[in-house]
Amino acid sequence: MTSSPPRPPRDPAADDARFLRDFETMSSFGATPSGGVDRQAASEADNAQRRWFAGLLEENGLRVVYDRVGNQFGLLERVPGAPYVVVGSHMDSQPTAGRYDGAYGVLAAAHAVFRIAAEDGAEAPPVHNLAVVNWFNEEGSRFTPSMMGSAVYTGKLPLETALAASDSSGTTVAEALAPTGFLGDGDGPEAVLCAEIHIEQGRLLENSGTTIGLVGASWAASKYEITVHGEQAHSGATAMEDRRDALVGASMLVVAARELADRFPGVLHTAVGRLDVYPNSPVVVPSRATLLLDLRSPDEAVLAEADELLLAEVARVEAAANVTVERTLSHSWGVNPYQPEGVELARASAERLGLRSGEIMTVAGHDSINMKERVPTVMLFVPSAGGVSHNEGEYTEDADLLAGLEVLTDVTRRLGAGELENAAPHVPGRNRA
Amino acid sequence: MTSSPPRPPRDPAADDARFLRDFETMSSFGATPSGGVDRQAASEADNAQRRWFAGLLEENGLRVVYDRVGNQFGLLERVPGAPYVVVGSHMDSQPTAGRYDGAYGVLAAAHAVFRIAAEDGAEAPPVHNLAVVNWFNEEGSRFTPSMMGSAVYTGKLPLETALAASDSSGTTVAEALAPTGFLGDGDGPEAVLCAEIHIEQGRLLENSGTTIGLVGASWAASKYEITVHGEQAHSGATAMEDRRDALVGASMLVVAARELADRFPGVLHTAVGRLDVYPNSPVVVPSRATLLLDLRSPDEAVLAEADELLLAEVARVEAAANVTVERTLSHSWGVNPYQPEGVELARASAERLGLRSGEIMTVAGHDSINMKERVPTVMLFVPSAGGVSHNEGEYTEDADLLAGLEVLTDVTRRLGAGELENAAPHVPGRNRA
Repeated sequence: MTSSPPRPPRDPAADDARFLRDFETMSSFGATPSGGVDRQAASEADNAQRRWFAGLLEENGLRVVYDRVGNQFGLLERVPGAPYVVVGSHMDSQPTAGRYDGAYGVLAAAHAVFRIAAEDGAEAPPVHNLAVVNWFNEEGSRFTPSMMGSAVYTGKLPLETALAASDSSGTTVAEALAPTGFLGDGDGPEAVLCAEIHIEQGRLLENSGTTIGLVGASWAASKYEITVHGEQAHSGATAMEDRRDALVGASMLVVAARELADRFPGVLHTAVGRLDVYPNSPVVVPSRATLLLDLRSPDEAVLAEADELLLAEVARVEAAANVTVERTLSHSWGVNPYQPEGVELARASAERLGLRSGEIMTVAGHDSINMKERVPTVMLFVPSAGGVSHNEGEYTEDADLLAGLEVLTDVTRRLGAGELENAAPHVPGRNRA
Repeated sequence: MTSSPPRPPRDPAADDARFLRDFETMSSFGATPSGGVDRQAASEADNAQRRWFAGLLEENGLRVVYDRVGNQFGLLERVPGAPYVVVGSHMDSQPTAGRYDGAYGVLAAAHAVFRIAAEDGAEAPPVHNLAVVNWFNEEGSRFTPSMMGSAVYTGKLPLETALAASDSSGTTVAEALAPTGFLGDGDGPEAVLCAEIHIEQGRLLENSGTTIGLVGASWAASKYEITVHGEQAHSGATAMEDRRDALVGASMLVVAARELADRFPGVLHTAVGRLDVYPNSPVVVPSRATLLLDLRSPDEAVLAEADELLLAEVARVEAAANVTVERTLSHSWGVNPYQPEGVELARASAERLGLRSGEIMTVAGHDSINMKERVPTVMLFVPSAGGVSHNEGEYTEDADLLAGLEVLTDVTRRLGAGELENAAPHVPGRNRA
């Protein structure tokens, strides 16, 4: 039996500096003048960042592979043939976004794996291999649905549907990815466990002085695609009583959604993020308006009541605006817990590192929500200053970024050593779409 | 003194058939599957139709010229050096439009001049020359403002402003027109009188069994450009009370505008034809929404009251949606009469031809509204079936098209013989923008 050559001693301060330097570099891809980023899925900025990231993974000894929907993986094989602990998030962004959303989680995963790779394994002998992942198109701003890459990876969305999704100019995912070299021919590494870290995108951690959020569950949500049908007419000459104005109908629904939230203070979030009007000409009564309307709640009973009230509003609007409304429930999910054993594992990691942690729910969707239905999954949050997110002013303190990286490293090390593998994946009992 | 060679006798049935055949041909440019047209200003369909129309004018002995904003003129010089009676309308259309709006008026003007050119002049000896006009960009759907070509021709809009106007892809009018050959280097013919015929775009003529509408005045209007400013945030995670949702604010204004019209039944038309949302992503609270909001009334006092009520609504919305609202009055005009002498001249022409006529107001804008501020102008309407307009289902009976052409021909002949030239152009006393 021969012993390995001695590894260089780890230098935590240098590792931290290297992480922050790499994060600065990441933030330069698609940088906007106001300090944010614009890296929509498969855009030139997203592609350039992926090329840079592939180089970073390879320099650190990981093997880079892509699956058939463009998910990017960096593999560290320690136990030949063993399945993988998949750790990561997404690097794509909204059109005018902050630097932290998703990107932090991918870089933290990479550095966690780099750090573990540099260890001798004595502390936690490897049982599984480790994979860093950069999921394709989590944001869904260019191609819907969101969380596309992880949905295909976990079998929740057919590959063909994802590849055929097209952006507003008619370019499909397949067409956008084809010239990039990011379309592989396999299914990616086999996952056995998963971890993700992300900024909170709210202000509960900040308000309570907590550094590490232990995500116990996700809010329930109902996401509707609504089309309001009216009739084109001259917007000046046509008598008001003859009009069937699709935009008036759509606007009534936007206002109704906001008023619905006000009826359930703190336990119902509603929004219309997207509204498209046709023909959208100054002197034409719109014949069609399409909108995406979301209802979210930590309480499934509240969500069910809100769904009913929205249905009543649709009927009221059809009569009041003389329009017809098509309403499709495009996605929905109940309150979905993460594995409680994963929450306890992460709590112990934070405690060992002397960091204040607390359980929290996530309102936003994350790729780990798809993953936890397949394999035991740990989800961590770090604070967002002022709760600002999907905004160029998004900010998280360096100290919090580094604290989160420490916890993620410890969690990944323990998952890689076989902890949590016997926890049951959570298959939601209420997934209505 | 020698006599001219005898002209071939006029064949009214053949002339009418030729007009209807030419109208069929026109309707093929930019034809849509549902029987309408899509010929936005300086689009390929608009350009192709203009090339065809130039050929038609030249075949019939007219000289084709363009001014510096792309207005297309067909000149019939009968009295060397004399100014012109300018007759016409516009051939551009909304994105999903009917076949009649504008196009009918241009072709009727051309055929009126062809018919007069074929006469011996004994009935009405020529005093002025005749010009057919196809005004550039009346619709304003691709480039704002609307009525652009006639506004520049009449000196109401600076040429540079018009040429610098850009469409949603950033292409300017100058760039769109440069490759077409439709940008001339002069100011076009000097106008002394003007006539235009158009479909009514309402159902007053149809309801009263009237064939020829004698347009006596245009409704007053206030046109606003409104920008609602909010703040980008995550549309799921952000607490409702922290949101500054620009789309909620804009939607409240759309609904308020509609409710305003309901307070003044029949004498106030309101509309928002265009609404653009930024970033318009499914999971982002919109930070900005821009909308074009119009108020129109046949009663200036009603319009003034509506303007005040809208201002109060803006203040209410700013507080209710936690947004700021910028409101700019981009265009406005009072109730503007056409020259009463022109109305009487047209009434006499209709009577002579045995056609039922009646006075009417126009709600929609027309190029003749710009022209009547410079020269005495006659505006005629023919019925629109069901009042349908800015819609692919727009329809006017052939018999009405031909009746309108007969009246326009008689009016143009009389204007060309010097009638009405001493009527004062109407300079509106209340043009607030």
